[in-house]
Amino acid sequence: MARSRGSTAQAATMTMLALLAVARRASSFALMGGSARQMQIRGAVARARPAALCMSSTPVQDGQLQAIKDQIAAVGDRIRSLKAESADKSMLQPEVEALLSLKAQYQTLTGEPFDPPKAGAKKPQAKQQQQKGGKQGQVKGQESDKITPRNQDYSQWYLDVISAAELVDSSPVKGCMVIRPWGMAVWDALRNDLDARIKDKGVSNAYFPLFIPRSFLSKEAEHVEGFAKECAVVTHHRLCADPNGGGLVPDPEAKLEEPLVVRPTSETIIWHMFGKWISSHRDLPMKINQWANVVRWEMRTRPFLRSAEFLWQEGHTAHATREDALKCAREMLDMYADSVKDMLALPVVKGTKSPMERFAGAEETFTIEGMMQNGWALQSGTSHFLGQNFARAFDVYFQTKNEDRELVWATSWGVSTRLMGALVMTHSDDAGLRQQLPPAVAPHQVVIVPITKGQGEDTDLVNSFVDTAVAQLKAQGIRVKVDDRDHLRPGAKYFEWERKGVPLRLEVGARDAKGKVLTLARRTGGDKTPIPLDDSFAEAIQQELQGVHELLWKEGEDHMASGDKDRTGFYLVPWCCDASREKEIQEDSKATIRCYPLDLNEAKAYEGKTCFYSGEPATHMALFARAF
Amino acid sequence: MARSRGSTAQAATMTMLALLAVARRASSFALMGGSARQMQIRGAVARARPAALCMSSTPVQDGQLQAIKDQIAAVGDRIRSLKAESADKSMLQPEVEALLSLKAQYQTLTGEPFDPPKAGAKKPQAKQQQQKGGKQGQVKGQESDKITPRNQDYSQWYLDVISAAELVDSSPVKGCMVIRPWGMAVWDALRNDLDARIKDKGVSNAYFPLFIPRSFLSKEAEHVEGFAKECAVVTHHRLCADPNGGGLVPDPEAKLEEPLVVRPTSETIIWHMFGKWISSHRDLPMKINQWANVVRWEMRTRPFLRSAEFLWQEGHTAHATREDALKCAREMLDMYADSVKDMLALPVVKGTKSPMERFAGAEETFTIEGMMQNGWALQSGTSHFLGQNFARAFDVYFQTKNEDRELVWATSWGVSTRLMGALVMTHSDDAGLRQQLPPAVAPHQVVIVPITKGQGEDTDLVNSFVDTAVAQLKAQGIRVKVDDRDHLRPGAKYFEWERKGVPLRLEVGARDAKGKVLTLARRTGGDKTPIPLDDSFAEAIQQELQGVHELLWKEGEDHMASGDKDRTGFYLVPWCCDASREKEIQEDSKATIRCYPLDLNEAKAYEGKTCFYSGEPATHMALFARAF
Repeated sequence: MARSRGSTAQAATMTMLALLAVARRASSFALMGGSARQMQIRGAVARARPAALCMSSTPVQDGQLQAIKDQIAAVGDRIRSLKAESADKSMLQPEVEALLSLKAQYQTLTGEPFDPPKAGAKKPQAKQQQQKGGKQGQVKGQESDKITPRNQDYSQWYLDVISAAELVDSSPVKGCMVIRPWGMAVWDALRNDLDARIKDKGVSNAYFPLFIPRSFLSKEAEHVEGFAKECAVVTHHRLCADPNGGGLVPDPEAKLEEPLVVRPTSETIIWHMFGKWISSHRDLPMKINQWANVVRWEMRTRPFLRSAEFLWQEGHTAHATREDALKCAREMLDMYADSVKDMLALPVVKGTKSPMERFAGAEETFTIEGMMQNGWALQSGTSHFLGQNFARAFDVYFQTKNEDRELVWATSWGVSTRLMGALVMTHSDDAGLRQQLPPAVAPHQVVIVPITKGQGEDTDLVNSFVDTAVAQLKAQGIRVKVDDRDHLRPGAKYFEWERKGVPLRLEVGARDAKGKVLTLARRTGGDKTPIPLDDSFAEAIQQELQGVHELLWKEGEDHMASGDKDRTGFYLVPWCCDASREKEIQEDSKATIRCYPLDLNEAKAYEGKTCFYSGEPATHMALFARAF
Repeated sequence: MARSRGSTAQAATMTMLALLAVARRASSFALMGGSARQMQIRGAVARARPAALCMSSTPVQDGQLQAIKDQIAAVGDRIRSLKAESADKSMLQPEVEALLSLKAQYQTLTGEPFDPPKAGAKKPQAKQQQQKGGKQGQVKGQESDKITPRNQDYSQWYLDVISAAELVDSSPVKGCMVIRPWGMAVWDALRNDLDARIKDKGVSNAYFPLFIPRSFLSKEAEHVEGFAKECAVVTHHRLCADPNGGGLVPDPEAKLEEPLVVRPTSETIIWHMFGKWISSHRDLPMKINQWANVVRWEMRTRPFLRSAEFLWQEGHTAHATREDALKCAREMLDMYADSVKDMLALPVVKGTKSPMERFAGAEETFTIEGMMQNGWALQSGTSHFLGQNFARAFDVYFQTKNEDRELVWATSWGVSTRLMGALVMTHSDDAGLRQQLPPAVAPHQVVIVPITKGQGEDTDLVNSFVDTAVAQLKAQGIRVKVDDRDHLRPGAKYFEWERKGVPLRLEVGARDAKGKVLTLARRTGGDKTPIPLDDSFAEAIQQELQGVHELLWKEGEDHMASGDKDRTGFYLVPWCCDASREKEIQEDSKATIRCYPLDLNEAKAYEGKTCFYSGEPATHMALFARAF
């Protein structure tokens, strides 16, 4: 996919190659250096915007376009012929999705929709087709049916997808979200996994007050800068009737002596308590975790990604030595990367933050960065080495084995419901209707749809056959749901569960039950397959689930490693660490250093290279991208 | 234990008999009626105060006192003889506790400590003995060692016990508590059990905003009365530097247009969302649960029992009919009673609230009431039938099968960290040092203490023997902790785990390992027992845990059913429902109607009786007590 953009394009290609190495953890990777200064990241990172924004800026080769047009024609033929045969929706759907994907590629390359008049008419038609395939009358949540195509408006697409899947809803409180049952079940599954991993590291759960005294925020100088600015401030403890008749107002007589802040994070109050609990080296390490809600008054909010209130866990540890604390901060980063891999099939780059992006009060911030489909990075979890800053601010000393008195060393680390946003933006695709849930967090991993007509012998047979299948799946620990609602036709049920991303669907009609098979449809597409209900049934389904997970992981990794180059906005460059230059680049291009990738920097891949921006000797390999 | 107090004492005895019936759910119980008006509950309930407060107000018979004195002498002899034999602490402890309990009984009856000069010297000595028995040098948390005797100051005893067990700590935010790891592990165990039971009822978890718009609180008329009064009011979204140099102050430019209230409960915001989600009978029932923190600005707070912030679950359901909603509210009450029985070994009385004590906005409030050791009641969980009040306030209609438009019917129900207080006040005893954790919620169900001296063959043998035992226990799903800290002697470890209420302790020395046995000590007392490490080892320990649970349950039930009459402040009387009379009684005696017990009232046990207070025909059987 060589494109004639001269040295800038080459630079982009080269950085992409470097990124490939990052993703594959090839720590021996040797970055192409040399004319780095000419790379002019200003231009390169400026393109790191949603595809929609840079659609018309890229000249493309005619041959490439023609190939896409040919493919579109071929898929179109197949769809027409399937329709002529009245094929089942599940046969049609992969073709329709392929068509939409090809058209999206066309639009990305040319900046124009493919065959606009037709496309305008066809997309809704394709949707109607899917609904019609289901033959349902009234689909619940029909109004949320309109999912904006990704290329048209990425931001709106995201909102449509999370709403259609009933993950989240907007609330009457500005910037605060309602997490609906389907979203909550995903978060609970992730929470349970993380909770077990955290406990495995010798960490105990505890709970600290929601409110932080105002004065606490001022204790750690950088921390106050970072968090005192936008927060919810509690000033009164009572409402009373407005004497002017305007309803309830804060009671002037119930004004707090010292305002309280709703926690934006709990370092300060936890370090106050650590001061009470820690006196000897025998009390160390002290490792505490809290599952909690926190509030940061954001002006521009998006559900999961950036909301005024969100749910998270925050770990806080105290150690006797700098080394122990650093080691703990690193371990937790690895734990996060493992959990998001196993639970969410989410590939990430591990790295450290540049000084500008560091947590307020930290000496080092470790991060996992995911690459979303629009080429933006999403900071998905952080682990901070806090040095002795909080111990100093809160006067937390311990007696060493030699009876000396020393300040303790600290870490903190957290992941939040933001991971739900990463999930959606990693495993949902162009057609908009498709949304994948990795099996590990899917509230239902398997949905069984019995296909019966009224009451009778056949219906009894199907139901008892389904009961047997359910029992076997449950015994295997598989989360299975039987959708036996009698006011919806099977097609409407398929449609609903597909939007919600249930990985596997099993259909059972009378003929299936008699033949002792179930018909398996995978959310990831492909042909339906008969699965016999024998001793290995549950095991076979377990393997199918594992297969879905691996496929999602591979897709995510491929996207990050090579992916669609037009969308990938990650730029890896040799860099000479300087906050003012980073600020300059951000102002020009909106891109920031997402991280210094750990493997490349530990291997000193920057050595002998010059900073692409300043020409000075490089001190880091830096990954630039725009961020959510 | 007849006492010469005339008709008032008789009334108390009669109501105690009635309570016995309640606790045993003898719905056919026939209450003694007749001269009910003379019963004068004003006097009776005035005595329903902590024993310490009414100690000197009760004349007692000499014979009764002499019996206690004799018992004290006998136990004292046994203790002296055990000490002379240098008996192990675990042998001494039950005797010491019996002695303290007898002395407490003496003090309750007479209002004077038993043998004051000696007692003053002996109690600390008894404590020292226990510590000395452990032979530890420096006990961690030694400063919290001083547990105030229960009879001296019940309130302080409670604070001392929860602090010594490291369940909770005070925080720098007035009225807010810090739940320490030991307390959090108990709460997490209870939470996990309840979460599974709630899901079994077809309820899904979700999450709603922390903040409630002020205007929402005004929508349901009674609700605003109940909750708008004392709450945390957020008025600003930013702090800024005080222009007068006074640190950080709420930024006048960041004043919210509408103040927000930190949720005291979430009915209003959830019913706003139900309005978006419910349109048809097919959407019903809708059953939602939320695990969350809530804030109620209490003036007088006590950890767990009444704190400004606490953790809870709140369930909210919507139904098509009144009957469905009422049935759901009842089911949830039963679920709570089952969970606190199975997890906390906590006996409760199930009942309905009088109008005065009903939840703000409810038509009926169901409650489980526990009886604490000081004779006060603790409301331990509630389930509300909300009628159509919230549906009306938030305009939530649904289309019926007949295409009519009707308001939905509602319930809400919750339990909170208050149950932790119930746990402490049900299973902790007079000696102050003893605190029981029911095995189902004990963070460690079994602690193994290896008894080794330095390194060597014997130590290796003990350690490998312990490893085998641990593997077997873990395979059985038992939560086991090996306490191999090398800076503490075994006795210090015993002391620490006893204070924390670990149900079982296993000691392993070299001789034990060679003989392939472990020595079992039960937190509930009694002789130590050797337990062989064979195929049935884990099963034997499981049975021991079950035995501890049953013993705790039985003790709790006995206390509630008959117990120590001087401490039991529950009074069951025929009653003619009238809020103004209830108010009068409360003002006189501080006692309120804790509930109308379900079984007696369903059996109409009040029929044919007259209200003990007004003499009018009774409408309910009412349980009066003072409440936390």
